[in-house]
Amino acid sequence: MAPGGGPTARRGILEHLDNGEVVIGDGSFLLTLEKRGYVKAGLWTPEAVVEHPDAVRQLHMEFLRAGSNVMQTFTFSASEDCMESKWEEANVAACDLAREVAGKGDALVAGGVCQSSVYKDHKDEARIKKLFRLQLKVFTRKNVDFLIAEYFEHVEEAVWAVEVLKESGKPVAVTMCIGPEGDMHGVAPGACAVELAKAGADIVGVNCRFGPRTSLQTLHLMKLGLEAAGLSRHLMAQPLGFHTPDCGKGGFLDLPEYPFGLEPRVATRWDIQKYAREAYELGVRYIGGCCGFEPYHIRAIAEELAPERGFLPPASEKHGSWGSALSMHTKPWIRARASREYWENLLPASGRPFCPSLSKPDI
Amino acid sequence: MAPGGGPTARRGILEHLDNGEVVIGDGSFLLTLEKRGYVKAGLWTPEAVVEHPDAVRQLHMEFLRAGSNVMQTFTFSASEDCMESKWEEANVAACDLAREVAGKGDALVAGGVCQSSVYKDHKDEARIKKLFRLQLKVFTRKNVDFLIAEYFEHVEEAVWAVEVLKESGKPVAVTMCIGPEGDMHGVAPGACAVELAKAGADIVGVNCRFGPRTSLQTLHLMKLGLEAAGLSRHLMAQPLGFHTPDCGKGGFLDLPEYPFGLEPRVATRWDIQKYAREAYELGVRYIGGCCGFEPYHIRAIAEELAPERGFLPPASEKHGSWGSALSMHTKPWIRARASREYWENLLPASGRPFCPSLSKPDI
Amino acid sequence: MAPGGGPTARRGILEHLDNGEVVIGDGSFLLTLEKRGYVKAGLWTPEAVVEHPDAVRQLHMEFLRAGSNVMQTFTFSASEDCMESKWEEANVAACDLAREVAGKGDALVAGGVCQSSVYKDHKDEARIKKLFRLQLKVFTRKNVDFLIAEYFEHVEEAVWAVEVLKESGKPVAVTMCIGPEGDMHGVAPGACAVELAKAGADIVGVNCRFGPRTSLQTLHLMKLGLEAAGLSRHLMAQPLGFHTPDCGKGGFLDLPEYPFGLEPRVATRWDIQKYAREAYELGVRYIGGCCGFEPYHIRAIAEELAPERGFLPPASEKHGSWGSALSMHTKPWIRARASREYWENLLPASGRPFCPSLSKPDI
Amino acid sequence: MAPGGGPTARRGILEHLDNGEVVIGDGSFLLTLEKRGYVKAGLWTPEAVVEHPDAVRQLHMEFLRAGSNVMQTFTFSASEDCMESKWEEANVAACDLAREVAGKGDALVAGGVCQSSVYKDHKDEARIKKLFRLQLKVFTRKNVDFLIAEYFEHVEEAVWAVEVLKESGKPVAVTMCIGPEGDMHGVAPGACAVELAKAGADIVGVNCRFGPRTSLQTLHLMKLGLEAAGLSRHLMAQPLGFHTPDCGKGGFLDLPEYPFGLEPRVATRWDIQKYAREAYELGVRYIGGCCGFEPYHIRAIAEELAPERGFLPPASEKHGSWGSALSMHTKPWIRARASREYWENLLPASGRPFCPSLSKPDI
Repeated sequence: MAPGGGPTARRGILEHLDNGEVVIGDGSFLLTLEKRGYVKAGLWTPEAVVEHPDAVRQLHMEFLRAGSNVMQTFTFSASEDCMESKWEEANVAACDLAREVAGKGDALVAGGVCQSSVYKDHKDEARIKKLFRLQLKVFTRKNVDFLIAEYFEHVEEAVWAVEVLKESGKPVAVTMCIGPEGDMHGVAPGACAVELAKAGADIVGVNCRFGPRTSLQTLHLMKLGLEAAGLSRHLMAQPLGFHTPDCGKGGFLDLPEYPFGLEPRVATRWDIQKYAREAYELGVRYIGGCCGFEPYHIRAIAEELAPERGFLPPASEKHGSWGSALSMHTKPWIRARASREYWENLLPASGRPFCPSLSKPDI
Repeated sequence: MAPGGGPTARRGILEHLDNGEVVIGDGSFLLTLEKRGYVKAGLWTPEAVVEHPDAVRQLHMEFLRAGSNVMQTFTFSASEDCMESKWEEANVAACDLAREVAGKGDALVAGGVCQSSVYKDHKDEARIKKLFRLQLKVFTRKNVDFLIAEYFEHVEEAVWAVEVLKESGKPVAVTMCIGPEGDMHGVAPGACAVELAKAGADIVGVNCRFGPRTSLQTLHLMKLGLEAAGLSRHLMAQPLGFHTPDCGKGGFLDLPEYPFGLEPRVATRWDIQKYAREAYELGVRYIGGCCGFEPYHIRAIAEELAPERGFLPPASEKHGSWGSALSMHTKPWIRARASREYWENLLPASGRPFCPSLSKPDI
Repeated sequence: MAPGGGPTARRGILEHLDNGEVVIGDGSFLLTLEKRGYVKAGLWTPEAVVEHPDAVRQLHMEFLRAGSNVMQTFTFSASEDCMESKWEEANVAACDLAREVAGKGDALVAGGVCQSSVYKDHKDEARIKKLFRLQLKVFTRKNVDFLIAEYFEHVEEAVWAVEVLKESGKPVAVTMCIGPEGDMHGVAPGACAVELAKAGADIVGVNCRFGPRTSLQTLHLMKLGLEAAGLSRHLMAQPLGFHTPDCGKGGFLDLPEYPFGLEPRVATRWDIQKYAREAYELGVRYIGGCCGFEPYHIRAIAEELAPERGFLPPASEKHGSWGSALSMHTKPWIRARASREYWENLLPASGRPFCPSLSKPDI
Repeated sequence: MAPGGGPTARRGILEHLDNGEVVIGDGSFLLTLEKRGYVKAGLWTPEAVVEHPDAVRQLHMEFLRAGSNVMQTFTFSASEDCMESKWEEANVAACDLAREVAGKGDALVAGGVCQSSVYKDHKDEARIKKLFRLQLKVFTRKNVDFLIAEYFEHVEEAVWAVEVLKESGKPVAVTMCIGPEGDMHGVAPGACAVELAKAGADIVGVNCRFGPRTSLQTLHLMKLGLEAAGLSRHLMAQPLGFHTPDCGKGGFLDLPEYPFGLEPRVATRWDIQKYAREAYELGVRYIGGCCGFEPYHIRAIAEELAPERGFLPPASEKHGSWGSALSMHTKPWIRARASREYWENLLPASGRPFCPSLSKPDI
């Protein structure tokens, strides 16, 4: 199967999903650009869109090449409460970068908001909704294709975000950063999904904080909740690119390795192919990643689902499926690795015999 | 200490090293650009310099920001035997990219050659030297600052490379991809170093195939060999960014995880700070990395040695030393991670309890 | 605290338990005697009581010295369906051995039956009850102090055993070899406990198949079930001496290491002290072990609960609590291990870097 | 092959070895009896021979049944410096126990001495030799068949022991508790072996402190040393029953798990079969074990070498080779484990995902 093709951007996100197509999201911006030297851990704000637009553009390009159908504006925490007066310039620049790259591949542009820094201390609906509206105003002016509200640990605030974003008349996706135990107030995933659907979200799901396996468990609970309530929404998964079976309710933030010792947990491309398959089988059709998802992880989603979609992404010109490019290696024992069976069954060693395989969360 | 400064490029590589300064090399191109979608595993050729110059330029920029004092031309395997007629265009483009970025930070440009695909079957000195001379001709025309011959598993071929590169009159560095057991013909590291020094190499060392710890063991043997022979040369280390205590003589190629399951082995920034310190204490002054070394690993070298060098690299504006930026986190248990003691002592878990911690090499 | 003392055997098991005392069970016979050369894995029958009575007597003695208050007759699978005509001689010999040793320390003698080999194919109540009655007849003639029905994976058969054993008029304890998922027909632990209590069992609990932690989870569910039904029974725990967090519903039989590769899973004495404390805090007062519980594990229970009980077992004359005997070692770094803090916090390595830390059950 | 047979005791140890036969030693007494409640860790003295002769007799019996051809007197540290006035009674009792059990199977009795507590502070040859002579006097009176000097960390003291023991005219075996780095004064294994051979030892080897693999490496160095010196002696291996690839020069004493957290390191029977085969192939013909070697480990040696020896030990009546007894199990997935291929390839999990696989020695 030759690289090429993909959903045509002229059609909107809901047209694709309603048509049963797989939409591939993008991956990690904050953690990836931290490793490239453009984002500071701790605050995790996206001033790089203004300071180093080339670096952000390049990452968008890599995801586009890898098969992403959506260029999400790099506006995580780019709200007034986190960036003060710089927020507007950042949102404008982020929209321009996303649109510029999206145009090179007919991808859609999604304007993104996330949970505020305000909610945990002040559940001030008016103030928080105003923060969302400020970002939305830029997104509307820049005419993004749809909107994503992501990384909410409280469904109440997520509902507020959906309510604001729906004012635009554009499709709205919403994801929570929760695990199977539910939101920080104890609302179960199924109940969260129902509230979000009732608030008007067109696409519902999870992002960040938990690895692929756990995230799909949560999403399964969301799906059951929606079904029980007689509701039908598109499902969306954007998990971590890390293995985190040892997470507690708070997710990977509470693991002792966060954020500077997560390397041994990074998923292989084969882990991600497995995730993509499981997501697909669960009925998820908006499939992407969050922190830790590098471009080659996104490509792995696109390659795994290429039979269903009928095409490979551009970056597959530099990748043989299931390691097939190794079949030309000069060493016979490396040639022997050029098979699906080999990589599917590999149990990769850490090279760290003094380290455990699981950690206990700090809380 | 504020980011900024660095050795002035006007002075040559040997002026820096003779002056006792630390020179920081760059990191991984092939494996890193493979993950970004621009290099194909198996052949590992750098046609990206022509096909996707923006992607290569961006990676050069990231290493420059991270503190690299050298922009090595992305010309690994860009020789006629591997790239056929495309070789010349690739070398020209790679020189231009390296020079363009080097100029933004006063870094030096190094033209790079590596072992040929010919040697293992035909130890044809004339033919192989001709291949090196072709690349050297471009490097000379483009007036690179010095030359690097790297990734040699046989000292005999490395000597040929040094002999050719010395014809240019420019300083020559040479690194072998061997471990403590020596080259593939059984020549010990100390003897290899002596042969390379006698051939005229100004800088001698190791790169690739083994992790930091093993590479420094090899380099220690090289140093002892040189001392025993009454020779003095600058030492250079550019190891893998992976933990590979379980390698055999052939290095990481023979590990079952190579090349698509190496994720759990990736070094943390703290591992690299330790490596930088150990390299420095061993007397190595040209310190960089090879496959697996991402920009933040290079930054870790620059941060570890900032006290000796007196300055931090530009990318440190986005990094608090030893996790200090976490001290402003809202969660107290994450604030508690903002210390050197915390990260130095962390034993990071793999999140993979069904995987071993070591593998047996395939041969 | 000096070794010595213990509950006086003249009083019955229920007098001890009703009085709030801790009763310490014994440990592993089949697996331990397999390693000593007297039991054959696979059939797991106790013909050693006839063939090698010295070996069985010695193991009883070790448990008595370690603090066991109960000598359970080594009559596991010593029923007519498993041992044919040899069954009666085995039961007689086992009773004599248990009584002989019990008399050396005022321990109680418990006659034990376990699930039949018949049930899984033929749920023939009359035939199975007859098997139990045959063993009971010997126990009655030998005048054991109480009866234990153990290792039932179906509550229906366990109820039949309780009904038969109750005919004797002696106290009856019953334990199932199930985990939190319940019995093989899907009856939850709480419901199992209620059925067993209603059938007349005086003591209810779990034994075998799962490690200490999992067994206490199951027992907690049993306790909740009894409470919800308004029933009150004494609780009993006799888990494996192995770490089995990776068990599925069928327990350790389904782990690939069963039965000849379980060594790396063996609990330390400190793990067992922790188990004893947790069992006590859950309200369990009959605390012992099953497969893998060696005499020093039983001693660990007795030492952990010595403050509550007021005495140490005889074998503690050869053991300093929490490693205190190491305080006289000649090497200072070994003396430094003579503390509770040291052993409580030790994370013992396996010395097996090529092995995983968890396995997947075979089914 | 039916259990039975074995070398006839009438012939001496050297007659067996000179004839090319395999002699199987016994296993662990101190650590095994500590777990059974009869030995106190720290001092590690064998007063159990007097206090609890039944327990010691039983352990001898188990080793005899498992295939041991030698009953070594349980006289480790039973010297005047460690046991004061009790030393003589202990040596007498130990000889009687060993002889009694040996007679039940035609095994040989070996009188054993070990390094003194004196040497490390006072290298007083006269005083130390006197200690050995005292024990030897008992051994002579009790007419043991040969003598073993074991657990020496300094070759100088081992030579003294050999010199004293040779005074008896009986065959003398000597083992050092050293690794490949040699004795505590830096004498290499090869040089140690030569000195011991020259002092008159008939059998030379290693015992304790290191696992099977490391011990055979040391023994290989001893063998090479003897060969280089033109000497020929019988070789003897009695390693730990623990995996200790992470030991430093001092062996397992320096591992943080010593002595109360070694459980995860215990070898499986299959590990020991592999050890027995490797020892045999190295030319070792006196093959046994030390701390951690349980009776079933000794049986594993006897079973592995049964083809060469032509008979199985008595305890094999309770063991199917390579798990063959599982072939009658009712569960098909457990029947599938009844093969050599299964157990040879099993990588057993520890069930401890929070623990590392290797430790760093304390010094």
